[in-house]
Amino acid sequence: MDDTFVIVGGDAAGMSAASKAKREDPDLGVIVFEKGEWVSYAACGMPYYVKGAVDDLEDLVAVTPEEFREKRDVDVRTGHEVVGVDPEAKSVTVDAGGERFDQPYGSLLIGTGARAVVPPFDGVDLEGVFTLGRMDEADAIETYVTDREPATAAIVGGGYIGTEMAEALSARGVGVSIFEMLPRTLQPFGEEAARVVEDHLREQGVDLHLETAVQGFSGDGRIETVDLEDGSVEAELAIVGVGVAPNAELAAEAGIELGPTGAIATDEYGRTSEEGVFAAGDCAEATNVVTGEPDHVPLALTANRAGRAIGSTVAGEPTPTGGTAATAIVKAFDLGVARTGVIDPEAARDAGFDPGSVTIEAGTRSHYYPGAETLTVTLVADRESERVLGASVVGREGAKRIDTVATAVHAGLTVTELQNLDLAYAPPFSPVWDPILTAAKVLGGKLEA
Amino acid sequence: MDDTFVIVGGDAAGMSAASKAKREDPDLGVIVFEKGEWVSYAACGMPYYVKGAVDDLEDLVAVTPEEFREKRDVDVRTGHEVVGVDPEAKSVTVDAGGERFDQPYGSLLIGTGARAVVPPFDGVDLEGVFTLGRMDEADAIETYVTDREPATAAIVGGGYIGTEMAEALSARGVGVSIFEMLPRTLQPFGEEAARVVEDHLREQGVDLHLETAVQGFSGDGRIETVDLEDGSVEAELAIVGVGVAPNAELAAEAGIELGPTGAIATDEYGRTSEEGVFAAGDCAEATNVVTGEPDHVPLALTANRAGRAIGSTVAGEPTPTGGTAATAIVKAFDLGVARTGVIDPEAARDAGFDPGSVTIEAGTRSHYYPGAETLTVTLVADRESERVLGASVVGREGAKRIDTVATAVHAGLTVTELQNLDLAYAPPFSPVWDPILTAAKVLGGKLEA
Repeated sequence: MDDTFVIVGGDAAGMSAASKAKREDPDLGVIVFEKGEWVSYAACGMPYYVKGAVDDLEDLVAVTPEEFREKRDVDVRTGHEVVGVDPEAKSVTVDAGGERFDQPYGSLLIGTGARAVVPPFDGVDLEGVFTLGRMDEADAIETYVTDREPATAAIVGGGYIGTEMAEALSARGVGVSIFEMLPRTLQPFGEEAARVVEDHLREQGVDLHLETAVQGFSGDGRIETVDLEDGSVEAELAIVGVGVAPNAELAAEAGIELGPTGAIATDEYGRTSEEGVFAAGDCAEATNVVTGEPDHVPLALTANRAGRAIGSTVAGEPTPTGGTAATAIVKAFDLGVARTGVIDPEAARDAGFDPGSVTIEAGTRSHYYPGAETLTVTLVADRESERVLGASVVGREGAKRIDTVATAVHAGLTVTELQNLDLAYAPPFSPVWDPILTAAKVLGGKLEA
Repeated sequence: MDDTFVIVGGDAAGMSAASKAKREDPDLGVIVFEKGEWVSYAACGMPYYVKGAVDDLEDLVAVTPEEFREKRDVDVRTGHEVVGVDPEAKSVTVDAGGERFDQPYGSLLIGTGARAVVPPFDGVDLEGVFTLGRMDEADAIETYVTDREPATAAIVGGGYIGTEMAEALSARGVGVSIFEMLPRTLQPFGEEAARVVEDHLREQGVDLHLETAVQGFSGDGRIETVDLEDGSVEAELAIVGVGVAPNAELAAEAGIELGPTGAIATDEYGRTSEEGVFAAGDCAEATNVVTGEPDHVPLALTANRAGRAIGSTVAGEPTPTGGTAATAIVKAFDLGVARTGVIDPEAARDAGFDPGSVTIEAGTRSHYYPGAETLTVTLVADRESERVLGASVVGREGAKRIDTVATAVHAGLTVTELQNLDLAYAPPFSPVWDPILTAAKVLGGKLEA
C-alpha cells in the first residue's frame, strides 16, 4: 500500500501541511498538485501590490516551489490539476496540461480553496472587469491601472476586497465608487463598526452607494459604465468582490460530505467523511468556538493552522485543527477594523444565546498623551451566563486589541472576568482602563441592570 | 453610629472608591483626606511632562477637587493628613495644617500609596538631586531643567522611572547616564527584554553603567558629580529612582496586619485585618493570579480597580477587587516593553512550577508590508501542566500584544490553547501567525521534546 501524502492545492493549508508532515516524518513521501503556477502565496497581500505598497508580486510568496522541492523535499507540481478523487481506490486523477495519470495516496488533503463569486451580471467579460482571488488577477489589475490609467473605478461589494481595493485604487489616483446591495459595508463586523467605516470611506472621497444593486457593466469592448436599476455611473475599471464560494466540487463529486455551509464537512482533526481524506482551508468548514457549530471562515490563519495540524496527524501525531472564532481585521484607509466571535444578534439567538451589547468610544492612549485616537468598541455577551460572545473594534490605531476579546472568547470568560483582566497600561499605550476593559465595565453594568 | 466612608489618600484607589461609592449610593457620606494639594492625578504621566510632551502639569489631573465636590458630591479635603487610625473607636485623627480633629467612620479605605525609596547616599540634599513620585517633584525637575539647562544627568536605577526619565531628559537635550546596581535594567521584565532595551538605550546615546553602585553625590550646594566606588562622573542633575516602598506605617501603627511584602495585607475584597477597614493601591497587597500568593504591584490599574470594587462593596454590593497578573508596559525611547505573569525562573520555581521558556523574534506585520518591525517575545510555561505563566514583549510597535498573554494567564490557558487562539491577521497588522502564536508554537514544541 502506498502511504504517500497527496495534497490538492498548494496554498496556505496545503503547503503548511506539506511542510509540517515532512518535518515530523522526513521519510514520508509528500506530493502537492497545484493547478496554477503559484504556491504558498499571501492572497491577503494582493491589494497592497495593486496599491503600490508592495513592489513585486513575488514578494507575496513565502516559499517558492523550488525551495519546497530542494530545501523541504516536498514534491510540488504546479500546472497539475486534480480532476477526480476515488476514495475507494485511494487514488486521485491528475491532469497535467492535457496528460492524465492516477496517483495513489495513503492520506489525502483537499485544500482547493475558494473562488470569487460572480453574480450573473451583464458585461462581466468586458475588458476592465476583474475579480481578485488569484495572483494572476492581481497582476492583471495592476497592469490595467498602470497602462490604462482609469479615472474611475466601480467596486461591487463592500466587504474585505471592496474596502481594501478602494484604498488601493484611491492611492493610485483612481476615483472610487462602491456599490453594496445591503444596507451596510463589512457585514461580518456588525452595524456599529460599519457606521464608523462608512463615515471614513466618505471622508476619503469614496462614493458609497448602499442598498444599491448592480445590474451589469456596459461598454464597447471595454467597460465604460456600471449599470444600476435607475441609471448608470461611469467606470473605467470594475472589481467584483461580492464574496467567495468554497471549491468543494471535487470533494462532492467523490462522494465526500459537504456541511451546512456548502463547504467540506470536517471533524476536529480535519477528517472528511471518507477514510484517509482530510480537508482544510477555504474549501472546508471549521468549528466555531462560540457556537460549537460548523462555520465557513475562509481566512488565512484558519487554513494555515488546520494544514499544520493535519500535517502532524498524517505524520503520526494526531493533532486537532483548533476551532475558529472568526477573528478578522481589515485596513480601511486609515482605520483598522476588527471583529471576533458572534456579533450579530440574530446569529447569537440562533446559537441559543440571549445577546446584550454595548458600544463605547475610548481613547487609545492617556487623554493627555500626544497622538491618542478614538477606538469604537462593541462588545456582546449572553445575558444569562454573561459569557463574552464577540466584539468589534475600529480606530486609527489599536484595532489589534480585538485579540484580547478573541482570547476571552476562546477561554469562555464572562464579562466580569474580562473586566477584571490585568491589561497593560502606560500613558503612551493605553488609558488606565484599556478600551476593552471600559467596554466590559459598561456591558457588565448593563447586564446587571 | 456614623456610617461615613472615610478615605485616606486622594489618588487612584481613593478617588475611584469615592466616585463609585457615591454613584452606587448617593446618600452615603464620603470624605477624602489628602495630605497634598493634588488629587486624582496620573503619576505615570509625569515623565512626559518633564519631556515636554504634556504642556501643563494640570493636564495630568483627571478630576479636580472642585469637580469632586461639586459634581460628585465627594467631600475632598486637600492639605489634610490622617495621622492616626483607631479601629476600636472607628475613628481617624486628622491634622489640617497643625489643627487636629477626629473623624468617625463606618468604613475606612487606606489608600496612602507608595513613596520613592532613597538609599543612604551622601549628598541627597544637594540642589539638583530629585526623586519623582509626587506632582511637586515633577514640577521641580521640569523647572530645574528649564532654569539650569543641565548638560548632564545621572539617573540612579534602571527601572520604570529611570527608563522613562532617560527618554524625557534626552529629549530636553540633557546627556544621560544610568547607574544600575544589578546586572540588568527593567528587572521585572526579564533578561531577554532587558537585553533589547539596553542595546536600544545605548543606541540612543545613554551611557549605561550596569553593576555599578552609587555612593552619593558631590557638589558645592548644587550637585556636580555622582560618586562611584572607583571614581566619579559629572552630573548637573540626578534622579534617584531605585524603587518604591508602600506607605504602610499608618496602618501598621493602628495594628493592621502587613503582608509578606511589607504592604498592607488584604483579602479578595480589599479588607484588612481590622473590621470595616479596607486598603488598596500602592500601599496594599493584591493576589497574584499566577501564584495565588500576595504580591505588591504598585501600578495604576490595580489601584483603580481595587478602589472601584471597594467603593461598590462599601455601597452595599460586595465586589472582589480582582487579582493582579503584574502586567506592565513601559516606553523606552522608541521601544515598547511589556510583561505579564511570572517570567523569572526562580520566582516560578518558588511558586511550585517547573518553568520552560523560549524567546523568539517575529515581525509585527507581514514581511512584505511596509513598516514591519521586529518583536522579541519571551514566553514562559510550566513544563508539567503546560500552563502559560508569563511573557515579555519588546519592540518598536506591538508591545500591547502582551494583553493576549495576560488574558491567557488569567484564564489559565495552556501553551497548546494559546497556540490555537484565533487572533486577528491582515498584512498591515500582523503576520498570519501573530508573534504570540509563533512563541507558543515554538514553546509547545520545546515542552514536548
